[in-house]
Amino acid sequence: MSPLLPATMRAAVLHGPGQLRIEERPVPAPGPRQVLVRVDAVGACGSDVHYYRHGRIGDFVVDAPLVLGHEPSGTVVALGPGVTRHEVGQRVSVEPGTPCGTCTECRTGRYNLCPRMVFYATPPVDGVFCEYAAVHEEFAHPVPDALGDEAAALLEPLSVGVWSCRKARVAPGDRVLVTGAGPIGLVAAQTALAFGAREVTVTDVLPQRLELARTLGLTAVDVSRTPPAELAFGPSVLLECSGVPAVIGEAVRAMARAGRVVLIGMGGDEVPLPLAQVQNYELEVTGTFRYAHTWPTAIGLAASGQVALDPLVTHRFGLAETERALTVGAEDPTAVKSVVLPQR
Amino acid sequence: MSPLLPATMRAAVLHGPGQLRIEERPVPAPGPRQVLVRVDAVGACGSDVHYYRHGRIGDFVVDAPLVLGHEPSGTVVALGPGVTRHEVGQRVSVEPGTPCGTCTECRTGRYNLCPRMVFYATPPVDGVFCEYAAVHEEFAHPVPDALGDEAAALLEPLSVGVWSCRKARVAPGDRVLVTGAGPIGLVAAQTALAFGAREVTVTDVLPQRLELARTLGLTAVDVSRTPPAELAFGPSVLLECSGVPAVIGEAVRAMARAGRVVLIGMGGDEVPLPLAQVQNYELEVTGTFRYAHTWPTAIGLAASGQVALDPLVTHRFGLAETERALTVGAEDPTAVKSVVLPQR
Amino acid sequence: MSPLLPATMRAAVLHGPGQLRIEERPVPAPGPRQVLVRVDAVGACGSDVHYYRHGRIGDFVVDAPLVLGHEPSGTVVALGPGVTRHEVGQRVSVEPGTPCGTCTECRTGRYNLCPRMVFYATPPVDGVFCEYAAVHEEFAHPVPDALGDEAAALLEPLSVGVWSCRKARVAPGDRVLVTGAGPIGLVAAQTALAFGAREVTVTDVLPQRLELARTLGLTAVDVSRTPPAELAFGPSVLLECSGVPAVIGEAVRAMARAGRVVLIGMGGDEVPLPLAQVQNYELEVTGTFRYAHTWPTAIGLAASGQVALDPLVTHRFGLAETERALTVGAEDPTAVKSVVLPQR
Amino acid sequence: MSPLLPATMRAAVLHGPGQLRIEERPVPAPGPRQVLVRVDAVGACGSDVHYYRHGRIGDFVVDAPLVLGHEPSGTVVALGPGVTRHEVGQRVSVEPGTPCGTCTECRTGRYNLCPRMVFYATPPVDGVFCEYAAVHEEFAHPVPDALGDEAAALLEPLSVGVWSCRKARVAPGDRVLVTGAGPIGLVAAQTALAFGAREVTVTDVLPQRLELARTLGLTAVDVSRTPPAELAFGPSVLLECSGVPAVIGEAVRAMARAGRVVLIGMGGDEVPLPLAQVQNYELEVTGTFRYAHTWPTAIGLAASGQVALDPLVTHRFGLAETERALTVGAEDPTAVKSVVLPQR
Repeated sequence: MSPLLPATMRAAVLHGPGQLRIEERPVPAPGPRQVLVRVDAVGACGSDVHYYRHGRIGDFVVDAPLVLGHEPSGTVVALGPGVTRHEVGQRVSVEPGTPCGTCTECRTGRYNLCPRMVFYATPPVDGVFCEYAAVHEEFAHPVPDALGDEAAALLEPLSVGVWSCRKARVAPGDRVLVTGAGPIGLVAAQTALAFGAREVTVTDVLPQRLELARTLGLTAVDVSRTPPAELAFGPSVLLECSGVPAVIGEAVRAMARAGRVVLIGMGGDEVPLPLAQVQNYELEVTGTFRYAHTWPTAIGLAASGQVALDPLVTHRFGLAETERALTVGAEDPTAVKSVVLPQR
Repeated sequence: MSPLLPATMRAAVLHGPGQLRIEERPVPAPGPRQVLVRVDAVGACGSDVHYYRHGRIGDFVVDAPLVLGHEPSGTVVALGPGVTRHEVGQRVSVEPGTPCGTCTECRTGRYNLCPRMVFYATPPVDGVFCEYAAVHEEFAHPVPDALGDEAAALLEPLSVGVWSCRKARVAPGDRVLVTGAGPIGLVAAQTALAFGAREVTVTDVLPQRLELARTLGLTAVDVSRTPPAELAFGPSVLLECSGVPAVIGEAVRAMARAGRVVLIGMGGDEVPLPLAQVQNYELEVTGTFRYAHTWPTAIGLAASGQVALDPLVTHRFGLAETERALTVGAEDPTAVKSVVLPQR
Repeated sequence: MSPLLPATMRAAVLHGPGQLRIEERPVPAPGPRQVLVRVDAVGACGSDVHYYRHGRIGDFVVDAPLVLGHEPSGTVVALGPGVTRHEVGQRVSVEPGTPCGTCTECRTGRYNLCPRMVFYATPPVDGVFCEYAAVHEEFAHPVPDALGDEAAALLEPLSVGVWSCRKARVAPGDRVLVTGAGPIGLVAAQTALAFGAREVTVTDVLPQRLELARTLGLTAVDVSRTPPAELAFGPSVLLECSGVPAVIGEAVRAMARAGRVVLIGMGGDEVPLPLAQVQNYELEVTGTFRYAHTWPTAIGLAASGQVALDPLVTHRFGLAETERALTVGAEDPTAVKSVVLPQR
Repeated sequence: MSPLLPATMRAAVLHGPGQLRIEERPVPAPGPRQVLVRVDAVGACGSDVHYYRHGRIGDFVVDAPLVLGHEPSGTVVALGPGVTRHEVGQRVSVEPGTPCGTCTECRTGRYNLCPRMVFYATPPVDGVFCEYAAVHEEFAHPVPDALGDEAAALLEPLSVGVWSCRKARVAPGDRVLVTGAGPIGLVAAQTALAFGAREVTVTDVLPQRLELARTLGLTAVDVSRTPPAELAFGPSVLLECSGVPAVIGEAVRAMARAGRVVLIGMGGDEVPLPLAQVQNYELEVTGTFRYAHTWPTAIGLAASGQVALDPLVTHRFGLAETERALTVGAEDPTAVKSVVLPQR
């Protein structure tokens, strides 16, 4: 490794619910086919917030110190053995999970379901609220100059949008309802437009989010005033980003025949599914778990301007302020997306 | 019309919950492109039973006298104007619904969802517990001699099985769980085998049904003794034929990654959907509403012996005994499928 | 019918190769569920030109007087019995083919393949280079004010573009090559952009067409200077609109792995298919025959401005000049699309 | 490695067209996650024969000594580091290609198209006409006792059949034409039956092959007497296994509307494609290149008896007779499939 690289780095380490400390850790050495990436920006995600607050998500329990953060962009600063696709200095957006490559799920093109997936910030795998990360070269995706560091980090949530539109098979002719105007809802809605849908309606109850949606060119509806049933446009596609059972049930009942429902927002253990509606209209209901092979498409959408990512970033923090990045959302109703800039 | 045909016929008419009377009705005259079919056999379906008992199914209310029955087979006895595809004497299985042919649903190959569908025994459209019916020639499907009248009638439930296996994309390599060993479960399971699946497990709690399943070559499990979670074979496909919310929830939780769930059995208004399971495993959940373009395939499966229909028929009745055909199921645990033979 | 409507109308009738005469014909009376449409604009298509010159296309032979023209827009001026979806005065774009609605092809969502299709300007069915036409109400699609008469007529070629992009499953991430910058190539390329592709390259050898392509925002390449093999961008989708065997072969050899090839342009009886390329790259090759259920989507694309149709119209003619509309293309290299305006 | 294993083994090495020598080679040491497999049976494939005779297949040229053979079965005799899925003694069928696991093709479920694929007996990668092979544990598929060594070897050609039926989406209701009754045609036809098709017709001109097809329960037609055009059953699926351009053209012209054509047989550089037929009937034409994720399905089909593999084996040879295994087919018209048994 380069003698110019430091031996240690700072990392934001979770020791228990609400207990985040900045610690010194060794800079990792890139292994075979890995590159060392200097982390320039990391988006803060709802799952990071959930781990920070509750120390667990479902069956995934933080029972040892854990570095959170899984939406990194950065710059290649060193190459491990056998790397052929990168040079030092390459700016990259990092796909946060590395699948096994040989199981049934990997072989059939849905590597996001790989049971041996190694994914940042999912216990016991450390994430990237830190200064450097070693990354398999094929999961460090080169980004063009048109994309800044923050947009490059936000390719991860954009990937969720791309994956959900693929699941929903969005195309011209579709009428799309997006429930929830948080970061995921806003990228999903823009992605639906990029897939050709021209009628895309986003719902929420927070005026700031609805206003942001409108500045992004989206139709935004305040469902505290106009319930979904009154939208009355019979969506052919629902991209559900709220995770709220009542919203899900109401939106599913509003669907057109043969509509496709993609459940993206995480929520309670069970949601009530209107059985007769699913049957009589032959609705297709599925959920998304991360994404597979979305980066090239996401890069294209963001670089061409089909999807705007920078306007989502409302708050920026240095690494030392990582905890603030995880708490600001609950306190500041104007917060949409916080980004940690570890080099600042 | 032939001078040999009678002017009137007997029909079993529902006048209210539990009120079924045999009445004389005019024999219908076949209109343009219609054939007159002498009804030889009609299967009694769960929906007929439900209308008989409750006078309604969901929003469909019997508020005028209604002839039930929608699973007919018979013989062409007269031709309306413009008929080109039939001759008198042709034995047929009748598809019970005629779609409009021009709406979005019809144009896109899912005519079962046609909002203008005219479907037997669905208020206010009369069904075929009667002696004669006028049928659009394209919905009277010729059947080969290999199929008896009863099997020809049971092509309707077989169509439900074909449609559900298409929805589930059943193919070799799939492990299929069928919950419920009633008539639909038994045809769905056999159809799954015909689609290439070799691991097909049917569950129920009634010993007679499980035994029948086994005589049909199926693996049958008594879930009062072995709950689905203990089946532990990770189905890639669930064909849900019970409609029981608890069974649905339990079976969905047993699915393999990327599993496909088809909800066929009708039940309560809402069923609890395990959200995290649907998301983490990216399960696909859909329901079936009748069927579209299934008869040619169903005829092939039944005529070749890939699916056995005759063993499902446990009870036979004349038209005068139609009421008994609708009540025997609740009284006799050995009852699987009752057939009304109007010419007897 | 309204007393204000004339009893006769003018029609441009083909009597043999190169023999087109304007004749008086009765104004048709709209039958059940038909509307009478006053024809306001009709695009002239390559197939019209081919019938005019050669009196046949393949097995379709003009052996009796035939009215050409199959891309009409117009205004509803009278209603036949049973019409419920239109009022007099409604502006419409007319889908030129009416399928049977009940055959296997119709039932499975590909009614364009209906063997009993009745299609304008295909012997022996008259087309619409005339003043009035009777149309099944479901095939007269209402158009919004945003679309002029000429654009409404050009929804027919746009439908070819929509259908080909559906066949090719164009979506964000695709790199699309469109060979041929005639009317079909230009709508196909724009449609591919609307489906989300951002890399769309159109090739031709005529400078005027390449220039028009560029004014439509497309990347255009003169293949007399740069052969496809040198384009070297490995298209994932080929929309072949030239019908030239050499172009097809060269373009197919340029495809990326798992590429999708849609053969739209009509040409010789046989084209040479590079077998090893199709196998080693598992290319998918298919052709298009008209379109099915494209109008609602095409209307949306044109009305929103995602696809520009008006710039394609380079020549306009009155009904009396229909012959000129069919010959101008061969004489004037600036001609792209001619439109006949029967009311002018 | 076990001290009981020999240090060297015999291998059949190709030194140029027609020059095959038995040589001593080191027994390979299994690397990380590899198992050492004692090779018990290896099918001789047409591509082996082609390399033996011509020293090349298309762009793949044998310019250094090469071991042929890529259809092995065997027994695990030693484990490399990190192996978790096998124990010594496990009988396996070996998938002959190992993809990179991270490229676009691998990520999207079509790893057979991986440009970095390492595949047996494809220059410069040695094959398995030898006594031992080191195999990534995930590509050594355990086989049940129901499958003998020869059937386990023939899971490779069966994989071609499975892949082609998946490409063709064979299901109940399909009418399937298989052109060519060689080993691939015979497994493809049986696989089509297992996928639910009941009308499967195999064509050839060799009486022995047609007779074998009939003993396998297939309908077999001698096309030297009955040309495809006279078969007149309008196949919905064509599995083309002859590679003969005239056969391809004739069979494509016989297809039903919306038919699916899969080109499996290798032949000349170009084949004539009937353009108008592909367009007017919207035929889908594709080719196969090996297979992806077929072994579990193939094992199920063979173990259940849905597909019979043993009857295909007409000739058996020891390793010393490998050359004979590659030449017998040209001399003996009764030859269908030759197998090399390296341990004999």
